Amino acid sequence: MAAIGAVFGIDEAARTLYYVLHSLQQRGQDAAGMACTDGSRIVCEKNNGMLSEIFKEDVLAGMKGTSALGHVRMASDEDTDLENVQPIMVRAHQGHFAIATAGNVTNSQALRDEMEERGLIFQGSSDAELIAHLIQFYPGHLFEKIMTACSKLEGSYTFVVMTKNTMYAMRSSDGIRPLWIARCNDGYVIASESAAFTMIDVQDKRELRPGELIRLGEEGERSYFVEQDAREHMCAMEYVYYSRPDSVLGGRNVHSVREDCGALLAFEEPADADIVIGVPDTAMSAAASFARMLKKPYEIGLIKNRYIGSTYIRPSSQQREQGIRTRLNAISSVVRGKRVYLVDDSLVKGFTAKRICKLLKEAGAKEVHLRIASPKISNVCVYGYEGARQDQLAAYKYTDEEMCQLFGADSIRFLGLDAFRLCTGNDACMACMDGHYVNSCPENKERK
Amino acid sequence: MAAIGAVFGIDEAARTLYYVLHSLQQRGQDAAGMACTDGSRIVCEKNNGMLSEIFKEDVLAGMKGTSALGHVRMASDEDTDLENVQPIMVRAHQGHFAIATAGNVTNSQALRDEMEERGLIFQGSSDAELIAHLIQFYPGHLFEKIMTACSKLEGSYTFVVMTKNTMYAMRSSDGIRPLWIARCNDGYVIASESAAFTMIDVQDKRELRPGELIRLGEEGERSYFVEQDAREHMCAMEYVYYSRPDSVLGGRNVHSVREDCGALLAFEEPADADIVIGVPDTAMSAAASFARMLKKPYEIGLIKNRYIGSTYIRPSSQQREQGIRTRLNAISSVVRGKRVYLVDDSLVKGFTAKRICKLLKEAGAKEVHLRIASPKISNVCVYGYEGARQDQLAAYKYTDEEMCQLFGADSIRFLGLDAFRLCTGNDACMACMDGHYVNSCPENKERK
Amino acid sequence: MAAIGAVFGIDEAARTLYYVLHSLQQRGQDAAGMACTDGSRIVCEKNNGMLSEIFKEDVLAGMKGTSALGHVRMASDEDTDLENVQPIMVRAHQGHFAIATAGNVTNSQALRDEMEERGLIFQGSSDAELIAHLIQFYPGHLFEKIMTACSKLEGSYTFVVMTKNTMYAMRSSDGIRPLWIARCNDGYVIASESAAFTMIDVQDKRELRPGELIRLGEEGERSYFVEQDAREHMCAMEYVYYSRPDSVLGGRNVHSVREDCGALLAFEEPADADIVIGVPDTAMSAAASFARMLKKPYEIGLIKNRYIGSTYIRPSSQQREQGIRTRLNAISSVVRGKRVYLVDDSLVKGFTAKRICKLLKEAGAKEVHLRIASPKISNVCVYGYEGARQDQLAAYKYTDEEMCQLFGADSIRFLGLDAFRLCTGNDACMACMDGHYVNSCPENKERK
Amino acid sequence: MAAIGAVFGIDEAARTLYYVLHSLQQRGQDAAGMACTDGSRIVCEKNNGMLSEIFKEDVLAGMKGTSALGHVRMASDEDTDLENVQPIMVRAHQGHFAIATAGNVTNSQALRDEMEERGLIFQGSSDAELIAHLIQFYPGHLFEKIMTACSKLEGSYTFVVMTKNTMYAMRSSDGIRPLWIARCNDGYVIASESAAFTMIDVQDKRELRPGELIRLGEEGERSYFVEQDAREHMCAMEYVYYSRPDSVLGGRNVHSVREDCGALLAFEEPADADIVIGVPDTAMSAAASFARMLKKPYEIGLIKNRYIGSTYIRPSSQQREQGIRTRLNAISSVVRGKRVYLVDDSLVKGFTAKRICKLLKEAGAKEVHLRIASPKISNVCVYGYEGARQDQLAAYKYTDEEMCQLFGADSIRFLGLDAFRLCTGNDACMACMDGHYVNSCPENKERK
Repeated sequence: MAAIGAVFGIDEAARTLYYVLHSLQQRGQDAAGMACTDGSRIVCEKNNGMLSEIFKEDVLAGMKGTSALGHVRMASDEDTDLENVQPIMVRAHQGHFAIATAGNVTNSQALRDEMEERGLIFQGSSDAELIAHLIQFYPGHLFEKIMTACSKLEGSYTFVVMTKNTMYAMRSSDGIRPLWIARCNDGYVIASESAAFTMIDVQDKRELRPGELIRLGEEGERSYFVEQDAREHMCAMEYVYYSRPDSVLGGRNVHSVREDCGALLAFEEPADADIVIGVPDTAMSAAASFARMLKKPYEIGLIKNRYIGSTYIRPSSQQREQGIRTRLNAISSVVRGKRVYLVDDSLVKGFTAKRICKLLKEAGAKEVHLRIASPKISNVCVYGYEGARQDQLAAYKYTDEEMCQLFGADSIRFLGLDAFRLCTGNDACMACMDGHYVNSCPENKERK
Repeated sequence: MAAIGAVFGIDEAARTLYYVLHSLQQRGQDAAGMACTDGSRIVCEKNNGMLSEIFKEDVLAGMKGTSALGHVRMASDEDTDLENVQPIMVRAHQGHFAIATAGNVTNSQALRDEMEERGLIFQGSSDAELIAHLIQFYPGHLFEKIMTACSKLEGSYTFVVMTKNTMYAMRSSDGIRPLWIARCNDGYVIASESAAFTMIDVQDKRELRPGELIRLGEEGERSYFVEQDAREHMCAMEYVYYSRPDSVLGGRNVHSVREDCGALLAFEEPADADIVIGVPDTAMSAAASFARMLKKPYEIGLIKNRYIGSTYIRPSSQQREQGIRTRLNAISSVVRGKRVYLVDDSLVKGFTAKRICKLLKEAGAKEVHLRIASPKISNVCVYGYEGARQDQLAAYKYTDEEMCQLFGADSIRFLGLDAFRLCTGNDACMACMDGHYVNSCPENKERK
Repeated sequence: MAAIGAVFGIDEAARTLYYVLHSLQQRGQDAAGMACTDGSRIVCEKNNGMLSEIFKEDVLAGMKGTSALGHVRMASDEDTDLENVQPIMVRAHQGHFAIATAGNVTNSQALRDEMEERGLIFQGSSDAELIAHLIQFYPGHLFEKIMTACSKLEGSYTFVVMTKNTMYAMRSSDGIRPLWIARCNDGYVIASESAAFTMIDVQDKRELRPGELIRLGEEGERSYFVEQDAREHMCAMEYVYYSRPDSVLGGRNVHSVREDCGALLAFEEPADADIVIGVPDTAMSAAASFARMLKKPYEIGLIKNRYIGSTYIRPSSQQREQGIRTRLNAISSVVRGKRVYLVDDSLVKGFTAKRICKLLKEAGAKEVHLRIASPKISNVCVYGYEGARQDQLAAYKYTDEEMCQLFGADSIRFLGLDAFRLCTGNDACMACMDGHYVNSCPENKERK
Repeated sequence: MAAIGAVFGIDEAARTLYYVLHSLQQRGQDAAGMACTDGSRIVCEKNNGMLSEIFKEDVLAGMKGTSALGHVRMASDEDTDLENVQPIMVRAHQGHFAIATAGNVTNSQALRDEMEERGLIFQGSSDAELIAHLIQFYPGHLFEKIMTACSKLEGSYTFVVMTKNTMYAMRSSDGIRPLWIARCNDGYVIASESAAFTMIDVQDKRELRPGELIRLGEEGERSYFVEQDAREHMCAMEYVYYSRPDSVLGGRNVHSVREDCGALLAFEEPADADIVIGVPDTAMSAAASFARMLKKPYEIGLIKNRYIGSTYIRPSSQQREQGIRTRLNAISSVVRGKRVYLVDDSLVKGFTAKRICKLLKEAGAKEVHLRIASPKISNVCVYGYEGARQDQLAAYKYTDEEMCQLFGADSIRFLGLDAFRLCTGNDACMACMDGHYVNSCPENKERK
């Protein structure tokens, strides 16, 4: 996961951008960067680490100008290369520019191979570098170059390009990842989620439409479409897990969608447990709603220790064996002797589910009925979530009975595909659940 | 606020202590320290900053030994002196020792004056330094010295003293602040809250009794009483706000007490609102229970941005005016057009209440009925909470009507004193609410 | 300035490389980086800052493998971009590689323009990125690609390329910048200066010949020549200022060359001063030798405060006016009432000369006779020293008389061109002194 | 070693103090601290680490006021306790004060025992804490208290005490350690060495006389004497090693004293070597002068790598065995085939001498004649140098022949006691050389 933020035509742009990116830290805490321009040159600061570790007062003070572009990212263990930290700078003859991306180009390997055969080099593995290459490669003005580049790209990408005096924001035609724009004083703010606007005063906020390319310049805002009448296929997992509950996606508030999932999950519930517990924090909305529907008490039975920053020393596997535990804790007085509905937002590899079922049983729960407020995930995602291979997906490998046995749960139920579609809308991309990929993705499916 | 942690007779004591203190970070994120002994010398590392910023892998690796004593603290703006960071080391002729405290000595000024007149110096203003002075000043063996010192101290103090081969843990006779001990393998773990035991495997955990002094040594654990049959007067605010919900205080689980408060707050509710919203995180337990009693939907209408560490640049007052907001955000789709019960755990100066009422109204709430799940706070605390003078307390200065007007709330209600006593037990110290101080406190009352 | 270091086929390569780079810190303290390979992947760590700030124990511990490539650089104020910190990584289809450079490609702008027209992008402005592009662009095996790339490059470049199992080291045909190789156990060490071998045990150390390309692989070391019989034109300023005194350049020890310069500078000395003082540290060798020739006492009259690291807060210009001085200090008891020969290694903009003459006069020197142990610098350098435009060069702008007046010196003398050639050898590049550029450099001369 | 600096009555006192302390970094790089007062309160910042690592721009910006007191110290491996980092703050009823010390109280153990018996506690082991205790313990006004405290103290101490509106500076009656004062604008600057005044504009600088206590206040400067007509016994090693060459001690410039030592060392030189080499940096003055007297060429044959800061990873003993060397390097072309006079400033344990003799021989030196420009050190120092026990002193343990064999030197000579006294004056404390301690020191001699 990652998030883009950008500010155009606002005094102290970098400072405002800091708060925009700060609002989207749940999408990436492993690296952060900002490029900023005062109209004559573009400066860029970026590094591995959390936003607030990189951008201290003196760094922000050095970033003068009225336009800025930034990025936060989550990195896998194998990918901590500085070359992949965005924004990527392009120092071109006909004008420098900076670029940052979120989402995933699905035909990136083919495009990289093609560009490499033409003698181009890649310093890192980011889509941002790839798109920068494409933009630079095609002829014409920057606007034309971007339009041509987009015609080659497939997948769930979003990106923002910043020059000394213009800014371009693009959302892919499939609309899998969100991108928002709003007016702020006489300028503009762009961000991956609408919740990024919560710390600043904005007007007229709106989601970019699928395939929309916005150009901001002296003459204001102009909108173009790479593809007319493209339909939005918002990623289902954005609703379930990635986005902040106070964000709006495809016109739907995330928290409300999660409530709907919880409510429908309660339909024809076969078990008769005593209390409902949600896994903090992302499953709380669904769990509360599930409880309301079943008229069962919604209880706070799991506590999360929040003080875990980037410098925290995680217990080693040896220490875990010696008894050092993780950061979730069950409240015995709440669960002891109770039959518990345990509501989680989703189930990927099943490690968390297993750990929490064990926690609850150790704390005295009589029964644990695992309820997942989204459908089974049995296919890989090629649109931006890099987490799991198909053979690691619990719902792909195991039957319900096997999962119950593995996790130590007394029963397990998932939200059905049709019910989930009612909550997210028909067009949402549910490829990881139903296997219907919005656009073709041969290479990635094989790769994983 | 502050927390003590200690480990006795366990391999890699400092590493275990790290996780103990980490579990209690909500009690103090401004400074941290650990002293550790291998039986021949005591080493001490401490500094301003968060635990995980000070204790990195290489520092922990240098702290060898089987006993350790640690501390985390919250510091006011005026008190960031390194001299007040604990543990305090005493390098005495007859043996070095380290000491850490939590809670408050109420007659500290008188004792400091007395000690000063005898020519002693104070490098800082901590109770730990004062108690160290007293211990050192009185004659006898260390055990006798500690017993004599305790006979001079008044108030809500708890402390742990560590020498090269023994450890002493003391809880004041009034029992206002908690202190716990548990066995762990062949050794012991001591901590301010029982939730500190959640990351490690312990047996036989128990709260120290009021006035209890425990001595740990080669011969095991011995217990002494400074005062026989002392009654525990657990601080009411520990239940309401300070402690983790999964801690146990005076035999009562904190989360359950909060639920009871929420349930009783619902009694004879005069207003008829549509939904219940709790202020995250400490008011969630009470809010959910309040909703269950009223059979009103419990909704998640406020979102908290959690990514605020010690390096985060807080918006200046000027930026706030320009629209940079705080870290709480209201979800419009939840509150728009709704009459909202807003449940908070307590009301001190009223700043938070005012801000949240404004947030909700701006997000479209039709009415906001403020419900406080604890009684009015109209007296200063002399037992460890250093936050507010009496003339800053909203409930002391204003009538209910004035508060409604100030906060922009449509109604306000507090939990009654009697109802609150049902939840916390008769003996809890509620001095800040009912003015009955557990022990005399002339100096402090005048001072504030 | 910058330095390259590399290690091939040695256990814990990164750790050895750390000491190699550490020995060459005088060539660059603003950024540092290392790439390391264990035969299966290449990891890279780099950042702005000093070597020892970036490579702490935990970072070194994570760099496993038997080959490593590193770089330190000096950066101008305008060029602190992370994109220019080396090594540069190239993640290519047919194999990843890392590259680091020292020296200067003189036709870089033309090559960049050419590459850009073909659609390639540049993220930074370093020669390393340019050479990487060229290597990648041309067809064939890596060896062929490098040979072709070199045939396009002009100037004083040196570079090292590292793949998972091979290493290439190249020194330009003009031999302006040094590059050394030595055997170490069963492997090899490469470095910009021979003094880099002082902290490790090496055998068979030798300077690469001009135009030599070395390939290290499983089968050992192979040597190729881009140009046969190329002559070495070692940079005169390497002798005068850049290199460590214990390095060897073109077969000559740097300290000895400086001594020769000092001795010849004493020839036909017209003034009759009392004592000789050298500017620490680079002018000490010449000053001592100058004193020996004149049979005048060599005195230590200037002291340098060495404790100035990257975090040191330099006095602002306002503070300088208020009297906060720089880090050089004159010893009054040595210079008071004396006629002083002040020997410096070179004179570029003249700021230092002016400051020191003032220091000595304030400390009581009766006369200051400035003696520069190298010829007048009146042309720009296009081979790697990015410091001064021609209109900033004191010897270009002023006559000797004007300089004396400006600096407050009583006389000024420079070493003559012919005498200097005796010390450095006829083939040394003295373009900045005599205007004879070793190879054509139209673009750069105009640029500056 | 350590250094005191203080500023009284100067705008932005902390900023000026920063440069004062910075000039004295050679006396201590392991910890640093400053206390500053604006007339109403005293703030204190201190920590382990180098001055420039602790005092960054934002910290300095927070230290408002016109008076400041600071300290830098060198710490042994066993003594990195935060409690010993100065200034020490005393928060007393009748007024807070800060204190910093340099030098050594020789009867500290007796005084600590005495104070402890009266019930006082020591948190650390510094003299500053001890003197603070004494000052606080005795009755009267602060001036009287300080005078009484001084009457109890023995040894080579110097200290500065700062209150909100006054400052006291004291130099012990034996005058073993230096302390200086100067006027600066309308205020004063105090420092351990006169070289500390080199970065700022001062007037009327003078050394405090032995036994002098200066009081700075609104009414200006007043001077008192604890003992009339005390004689200064300046530490011989201050001349030899500790002080900067541009400092003045007891009226003598350090560099000049070192030159005198070198000159007298040349007297009746029995060997006939070819060149003279000094160990950088402290032996350079003596070596150059030694060379002048013998009319032998003074050569630069040893190079020191200066880029070793606090974060530098020192080679482990294992790495040293594998060939990673230290930071000194010999220049082969200078020493090969030569008979070398190697001049060092002093010889303590002999480790450095051994290493350098080996370096020179490996670099090709035919003979190495070790010449020490100070007498043999065969007694412990009780006045501030904590480095060596008597049984570690080379000159105590070995004959000249044994030392030659151990070090691999061809001959060894020391400066004689009488000659040395000619250079430093008759009154200098040479206890470590001649065993005549300036004042009684039973406890310390036994202790070591």
